[in-house]
Amino acid sequence: MRSLREWLTGTPLPTQRLATERLSNWQGLAAFSPDALSSVAYANQEIYLGLAAAGAAGLAFSGRIALAIGVLLAIVALSYSQTIAAYPSGGGSFTVASENLGRTAGLLAGAALLVDYSLTAAVSLTAGVAALSSAFPALWDYRVALSLALLFLITVANLRGVRESGTLMAFPVYLFLGSFLGMLAVGAVRAVLEGPSPFPGGLASAALPVTPFLLLHTFAAGCTALTGVEAMSNGVPAFRPPEARNAQKTLAVMAVLMAALFLGSVGLTQYFGVTAGSEETILSALARRVLGGGPFYLGVQLSTLLVLAVAANTSFAGFPRVTSVIAQDGFLPHQLAHLGDRLVYSNGMILLAGVTGVLIVGFGGDTHSLIPLFAVGVFLAFTLSQAGMVVHWWRGRGAYWRLKAAVNGVGAAATAIAFLIVAYAKFAEGAWIVLVIMPALVIMFHGIHGHYREVGRELSLKGLPPDIKPLPNPRVVLPISGVHRGVIQALRFARTISDRVTAVYVEVKPGEAKKIREMWERWGQDVPLEVVPSPYRSIVGPFLDYLDKTDQEHNDGQPAVVLLPEFVPARWWHYILHNQTAWILRLALIYRRRREGRIRAIIDIPFYLKE
Amino acid sequence: MRSLREWLTGTPLPTQRLATERLSNWQGLAAFSPDALSSVAYANQEIYLGLAAAGAAGLAFSGRIALAIGVLLAIVALSYSQTIAAYPSGGGSFTVASENLGRTAGLLAGAALLVDYSLTAAVSLTAGVAALSSAFPALWDYRVALSLALLFLITVANLRGVRESGTLMAFPVYLFLGSFLGMLAVGAVRAVLEGPSPFPGGLASAALPVTPFLLLHTFAAGCTALTGVEAMSNGVPAFRPPEARNAQKTLAVMAVLMAALFLGSVGLTQYFGVTAGSEETILSALARRVLGGGPFYLGVQLSTLLVLAVAANTSFAGFPRVTSVIAQDGFLPHQLAHLGDRLVYSNGMILLAGVTGVLIVGFGGDTHSLIPLFAVGVFLAFTLSQAGMVVHWWRGRGAYWRLKAAVNGVGAAATAIAFLIVAYAKFAEGAWIVLVIMPALVIMFHGIHGHYREVGRELSLKGLPPDIKPLPNPRVVLPISGVHRGVIQALRFARTISDRVTAVYVEVKPGEAKKIREMWERWGQDVPLEVVPSPYRSIVGPFLDYLDKTDQEHNDGQPAVVLLPEFVPARWWHYILHNQTAWILRLALIYRRRREGRIRAIIDIPFYLKE
Repeated sequence: MRSLREWLTGTPLPTQRLATERLSNWQGLAAFSPDALSSVAYANQEIYLGLAAAGAAGLAFSGRIALAIGVLLAIVALSYSQTIAAYPSGGGSFTVASENLGRTAGLLAGAALLVDYSLTAAVSLTAGVAALSSAFPALWDYRVALSLALLFLITVANLRGVRESGTLMAFPVYLFLGSFLGMLAVGAVRAVLEGPSPFPGGLASAALPVTPFLLLHTFAAGCTALTGVEAMSNGVPAFRPPEARNAQKTLAVMAVLMAALFLGSVGLTQYFGVTAGSEETILSALARRVLGGGPFYLGVQLSTLLVLAVAANTSFAGFPRVTSVIAQDGFLPHQLAHLGDRLVYSNGMILLAGVTGVLIVGFGGDTHSLIPLFAVGVFLAFTLSQAGMVVHWWRGRGAYWRLKAAVNGVGAAATAIAFLIVAYAKFAEGAWIVLVIMPALVIMFHGIHGHYREVGRELSLKGLPPDIKPLPNPRVVLPISGVHRGVIQALRFARTISDRVTAVYVEVKPGEAKKIREMWERWGQDVPLEVVPSPYRSIVGPFLDYLDKTDQEHNDGQPAVVLLPEFVPARWWHYILHNQTAWILRLALIYRRRREGRIRAIIDIPFYLKE
Repeated sequence: MRSLREWLTGTPLPTQRLATERLSNWQGLAAFSPDALSSVAYANQEIYLGLAAAGAAGLAFSGRIALAIGVLLAIVALSYSQTIAAYPSGGGSFTVASENLGRTAGLLAGAALLVDYSLTAAVSLTAGVAALSSAFPALWDYRVALSLALLFLITVANLRGVRESGTLMAFPVYLFLGSFLGMLAVGAVRAVLEGPSPFPGGLASAALPVTPFLLLHTFAAGCTALTGVEAMSNGVPAFRPPEARNAQKTLAVMAVLMAALFLGSVGLTQYFGVTAGSEETILSALARRVLGGGPFYLGVQLSTLLVLAVAANTSFAGFPRVTSVIAQDGFLPHQLAHLGDRLVYSNGMILLAGVTGVLIVGFGGDTHSLIPLFAVGVFLAFTLSQAGMVVHWWRGRGAYWRLKAAVNGVGAAATAIAFLIVAYAKFAEGAWIVLVIMPALVIMFHGIHGHYREVGRELSLKGLPPDIKPLPNPRVVLPISGVHRGVIQALRFARTISDRVTAVYVEVKPGEAKKIREMWERWGQDVPLEVVPSPYRSIVGPFLDYLDKTDQEHNDGQPAVVLLPEFVPARWWHYILHNQTAWILRLALIYRRRREGRIRAIIDIPFYLKE
């Protein structure tokens, strides 16, 4: 087990290696933007799928919907720019909501973030595999397996401690930006040279009418273009000084790039009247239309896959960080707060990998099925964070606080409206799952916190007298299965700690006890032997009954100490050759709850078999 | 867990309920013949399938092959009649071979019996389901699931303690005899009235020539008709006195019935030229031909299913009895020798159910695929048993010993030849599996026996001085994770058994120890506290290193006693909220092998959380 783990994740690292590294703006952009930039891949696809249901008439709306989302993006980016200024030490939704709106709002933001990170990983991986399968249609049927394989690779890499450092991640991010912007440029030139083409008529076999709900629905799905825009505000301390200023600049560049990628690709799709078959993404169809099917097209698809994999990777930085913060406050199991062998929060990563894997398998590796769950959590976290910022400015009442509060207030209102649209339009398709899970998580957080508080109370030393006398000479009970070296060794230890020792033999086969008694006469060193008959051939029950009876008889306020001689075979598979009586007795003794203040000590004396 | 078990298998029974019940000859026939009588179902089918490959020309040989098998049956029955006389207390193959041919031959016979019983169960269940599916073709595709469901029912019934008593089992056995003999009688009448019909020509699309190998092959498969004939010799003590005489009489009746069923059905099949499709058994086709498709036909199929289920049930009496005998001699794990809650050898039954389930699933619920494995083991056990009888008579040299030895000698020779034919003709089809498994089992038996002997030697008190002095005051090491009630309670116990106590704190987060030290000043009752730094954040490794180091420093020949304070949460799912450090430490301490004579006692002090 251990060597397998070390082979997968590398040898342990000492705590002192926890050092911080500062990022240039170029590196910062690469580190915090993959999720945001890669959103274009699925947001575009969602707008296409949403409108294609209404045929060419529907698709004619894609430019206007993209513009509406672009406006929302500008509002949200501006809002977060203010968050960066206000929280230079890192202003994630959890922090901002907790500090300004109270604990439950903070926990709700935390729950929304955990859901988001899981969905980011699942959506990015499946969308990346969809980009690859668009280029190689033979892979389309293996999307689940491919997504899980990618997930495994990313999990192992993260357990080894690959950081969100600017250097390694920079390559796929800039490759994607280069190839995608290049494609848009070529597309723009061809657009000027070739002029527009209409969408082919009779697209959907039974096209729906273009209703307001259809447009709202498409807007809601397209809002996934905004996911990841908040990442910069978590990472302010990673920038070089002046940290906040640099982070704000980088955020602005990122927002412009997002808008360019998103509006450019939606615009070109509409201009050229591009459509896609059921086993191809619309971005792939656009790239094919603009660049043909050759190496440049393949380059765009592969760089899309890469940047989406990097986006999934950012969840492996974000999710464990949020679980560790929540666990440190006592709202999630302690184990999530500990750094693992490689100085990463391994347990959080394994949890994320598990949840993501379940999402991928449960939704058949299909991005489109996952999207309805996705946007709900994102916009709830946005809203809570922006609302928290309004309270923050109002509390501080610094220079221009009204203006700043107004900016964040507009952000909060816009994202709240988007949240309601998404929850309404996508409710039946899966948004309800997230709307159920988020409050359930908050209830679970409170339950866990209550448990830890109760344990702390029970363990508290308050009221305990500082000098506690040792107990009187303990009674020791030694269950024996025969008279042999293992038992004699245990008897020796029993006599070392007490002179009130009793050996107990549970007689399963009538008549066996006689032989044992004879041997005990010789080897038992005058320790008394009690024989307990067992008409039902069980060892545990009669032995526990014997303990209860004698504890009552002695009535000295202290249950007897039980000393268990235990065989330890030389090889693990020898275990099946021995009854695990000591082990079963030990479990039975520990899990029978004792009355308050009655501690039953259990002593194991291992006897090591040599062969 | 426990209540589920009691619901399935009933409440425990006391040992004194183990009583014996004597069977009349009618009951004895029902108790020991199901396996033998029901063999007709698959043996007939095998002869048909073997010869049908050569078309009508092949099927014309079926009568002659059945006669040859009938002769073999007579020889084997006569041989076993002598075994009954010689071993009135029960003469299974294992006993006879062990006593007369030595231990390894006995173990080989035991291995052959275990293989047989497993295959009897698997073959009977699949053949029973085939009989049912012949009547209801819609069930044909669900044969694996149906066989497993039957297996589950029979396993549960046996775990509850349904015995091979004559009363319950008599019904299906006599129902089968009645309906099957009735069908043969109707068939005989119709045969006289209607005269013979030829097999339809051009049966197999590419009929093979009738070669000697094809006939041998068919003979080998048909020999499965003899399975179960030995059962009577195991059960002699269950008959009323004079036991041996009654058992012999019943054996003779059984052999005549077997011959009648087998020869009668094969003869009628040939006389009427009956053939069957790929989703029907030949017996079903014969019954349909003789009785039409009405209720009488259905009655025959259902009684066939029932008697086959009862035959599978006999394995649940035989297999656990053999494993318990072998385990009592120390050649199988002790657990197989213990009577369970319901006075049956539960572990052996569960083992049989597991092996049978694997056989059913592994061979796709197809009787025909299992048959090649079946006959090999049966005839090996026959041969060993009969050869053992020859030695038995020769050793005793009583009245007519030469004649008796000759009878068993002919039996041994005939079954040995049959064994060789089966092994040769069926080798590639699966007999090789059994030919590999049986010696492997014998090697495993010897390995297990060697292990127990070695353990006995290591545990032996030989050479141990009868009065062993208690150890000196033990050093106690108490690992602590903080200063709280659980620790204080453990400290109190530590001071009760020793005045050489040291508390140890493994510091995972640098700087934490300071706080612990301050609290320990107040609550530690002058027990020294050692802080062990852990740069890699592991608790187990540094603690074990500390133990090794201090054990060496003290060099008093005795490792320190480790006292582990252990949380016991109120609800099992609270476990995930607590690090299982005590549990992990305990495992690490026990499984690090200690040098000879160095016993490290481990003391658990449970602390019960109330909520």
